[in-house]
Amino acid sequence: MLEQSAAGVTVRRSVLPSGLRVITERIPGVRSASVGLWVQVGSRDERADVAGAAHYLEHLLFKGTARRSAAVIAEEIDAVGGELNAFTAKEHTCYYAHVLDEDLPLAVDLVCDVVFEALCEPRDFETERGVVLEEIAMRDDDPEDLLHDAFLDALMGDHPLGRPVLGTEKSIGDMSRDALYGFYRRRYTLPRMVLAVAGNIDHNHVMRLARKQIGDRLARTGTPVAPRAGRARIASSRKLVLHSDDTEQAHLMLGVKALDRHDERRFALNVLNAALGGGMSSRLFQEVRERRGLAYQVYSSVGSYADTGTWSVYAGCQPDRLGDVAGVIRDVLSVVAAEGLSDAEVARGKGQLRGGLVLGLEDTSSRMSRIGKGELNYGDYLSVEQTLERIEAVTADDVAALAAELLRRPVAAAVVGPYAHADDLPPQVHEVIS
Amino acid sequence: MLEQSAAGVTVRRSVLPSGLRVITERIPGVRSASVGLWVQVGSRDERADVAGAAHYLEHLLFKGTARRSAAVIAEEIDAVGGELNAFTAKEHTCYYAHVLDEDLPLAVDLVCDVVFEALCEPRDFETERGVVLEEIAMRDDDPEDLLHDAFLDALMGDHPLGRPVLGTEKSIGDMSRDALYGFYRRRYTLPRMVLAVAGNIDHNHVMRLARKQIGDRLARTGTPVAPRAGRARIASSRKLVLHSDDTEQAHLMLGVKALDRHDERRFALNVLNAALGGGMSSRLFQEVRERRGLAYQVYSSVGSYADTGTWSVYAGCQPDRLGDVAGVIRDVLSVVAAEGLSDAEVARGKGQLRGGLVLGLEDTSSRMSRIGKGELNYGDYLSVEQTLERIEAVTADDVAALAAELLRRPVAAAVVGPYAHADDLPPQVHEVIS
Repeated sequence: MLEQSAAGVTVRRSVLPSGLRVITERIPGVRSASVGLWVQVGSRDERADVAGAAHYLEHLLFKGTARRSAAVIAEEIDAVGGELNAFTAKEHTCYYAHVLDEDLPLAVDLVCDVVFEALCEPRDFETERGVVLEEIAMRDDDPEDLLHDAFLDALMGDHPLGRPVLGTEKSIGDMSRDALYGFYRRRYTLPRMVLAVAGNIDHNHVMRLARKQIGDRLARTGTPVAPRAGRARIASSRKLVLHSDDTEQAHLMLGVKALDRHDERRFALNVLNAALGGGMSSRLFQEVRERRGLAYQVYSSVGSYADTGTWSVYAGCQPDRLGDVAGVIRDVLSVVAAEGLSDAEVARGKGQLRGGLVLGLEDTSSRMSRIGKGELNYGDYLSVEQTLERIEAVTADDVAALAAELLRRPVAAAVVGPYAHADDLPPQVHEVIS
Repeated sequence: MLEQSAAGVTVRRSVLPSGLRVITERIPGVRSASVGLWVQVGSRDERADVAGAAHYLEHLLFKGTARRSAAVIAEEIDAVGGELNAFTAKEHTCYYAHVLDEDLPLAVDLVCDVVFEALCEPRDFETERGVVLEEIAMRDDDPEDLLHDAFLDALMGDHPLGRPVLGTEKSIGDMSRDALYGFYRRRYTLPRMVLAVAGNIDHNHVMRLARKQIGDRLARTGTPVAPRAGRARIASSRKLVLHSDDTEQAHLMLGVKALDRHDERRFALNVLNAALGGGMSSRLFQEVRERRGLAYQVYSSVGSYADTGTWSVYAGCQPDRLGDVAGVIRDVLSVVAAEGLSDAEVARGKGQLRGGLVLGLEDTSSRMSRIGKGELNYGDYLSVEQTLERIEAVTADDVAALAAELLRRPVAAAVVGPYAHADDLPPQVHEVIS
């Protein structure tokens, strides 16, 4: 059992014989609890013919268990004013609840019930297919979501990480209940799961609740599955993906393959990202929006996976400015690749990460996510203080070396906007990927 | 000076001679502070020819003051990892910062500097026009935002509340710097403002910081402006507004005029809203999504203004299901208008509000908003406990009486979707407003 404590906060970790890990963080002074059951199964675990299975399954699990219908699940959480929901990502799925502290037993019971005991009845499977297809249509109407999927397609090509989490109309339309149920039963095993709880809670109480949930049925012995690692084999990229859409704005995302989440240089990457495109004082924001008023939004972001990662820039602008926007972004990136960033910029980037980290951990949900993801991704817990130290240790030279390497890698780009063919895009967009 | 304290939380209020109100909430155990300067000026204060002035002004104020350029403003807040931003609504504008507690003086300084001392230089005025036009284009690409504006247009017609906060391409394109600067200097007076601060702070410290900001220049005596009240004179509604758009989903919003924010029945309205369309167990969610899988999202919401209000239902679905969705919503509303809700539903609606209220007040930003808006809208502070009591006091009869009145009022509706003319909409949409 690992224990860490700082400023009244205590993180504790236990492993049940079944292989389920339980990690908790006690936060005195709050009145709530956040419970998350993290499953190391995501869209990258799907074969192409069942693309979207992990997400479809996440929906289906809420449709009823041996003890509760979908309506009863909704009624029980609404009656206490709590939130019960889930999300599916490329490498994991998380089922979570946020409730008043006194409702912790209900929250653990609900989350475990849907994850362990869902019936996945054929009738519900059919109804939910319609809901998932609606969600795909919604994504298609959201240019930024669509753009993000298009960019990963451009960068990752046929690799499973390049496929959308939602699947496609075809893969969802063709999915059979048996295939999905098989995916559930094979993949959702206790050694692949982490129960994370943060708030006004006690570790031993959470352990008692967890043991009760697992009971006999699932209490086979097991060893926690190690975090994912390795080196992604990503074949040729498509480089440019255009999604023609009758939008008022043109949306551009461009970027490179960056670092996997185990790479020690990830703290330097976060500083680089903050200073280059993370805030209102960042190079990109100042050059694109403030100095030239070319776009409403422009920012950069880091994506981390077990064995690869991304660094990308987003901009949304009027279509007739897309060329200028792409040109300015390209210029900024070449200058930074050649010269790195100033000491003042690096200091500001570090300040931004430092403040953002502390300010972002005020609610129990983000605390729960932090410990749950930490366990799933690293099998370890890095305290806030340890993280702050790693950020502090980054130097301007580290940032410059990383910029020189990453910003010279082959660029992939995606555009959502009113262009019929890639040939209609302004030349600067083609130049950026050349 | 008003003082209220519960569970270690203390709310204090002072009025400076200039008419500026300062309201603070001390929250022990957190490490941050949220600072908001609330101005009782919003889009409803604009004449039609300067529609969007309040929002355009909000942008412009960040472009530089006597002491700081736009870049320096951004650098100072990024250096401490804080957030500095603003939003404009129909009846108010709020400038806010969220920082570590030790950075409170900087946060108060930055927020007051941009609101009191902005230069509004002609060159920045021109650059920012482009950014605001980008934001209008972004709104046009977001079906739900567009729908919301279209619905208020349908319900409120030519009343200023029916106009979009962003203004129009024409009104922004035609705006002169002098008109906007005049709007700023006439409207942004201290008696119309509330400085709200929540977090690990001390009221007297905040008062010292506020006095220092106001200094001599603006320290004329004044009396706080009373909250808005009255009765909105809203002429004929347009009833149905269609915005043709090449979207995958059809988006429908329908609703009625409801209660102004001073109406004592607002607690009953919130219970009705929660039970009818506020959660996964609500009537609308169960009937539309769970039982029939007709839509991905369906929910209802309450809008409150000084002298009127709205209650509305949103649904997003495949275009070929729009008729069924509208029909089911109409049926649900007529049943509830005739029969009210069951005791179990009312109890669940109350539980939902209760839990949601407490869980929604965990971060300092929402605490700051609560006290700032309370002061601006009511000139008073209702504690969480007092609010919980008012919710608890609502009966099933109150809810039934309100449903019988509101759900029989004339319905207005808006649709965003792939329909060229209103005649192309399914008959159920026309029936819903007839």
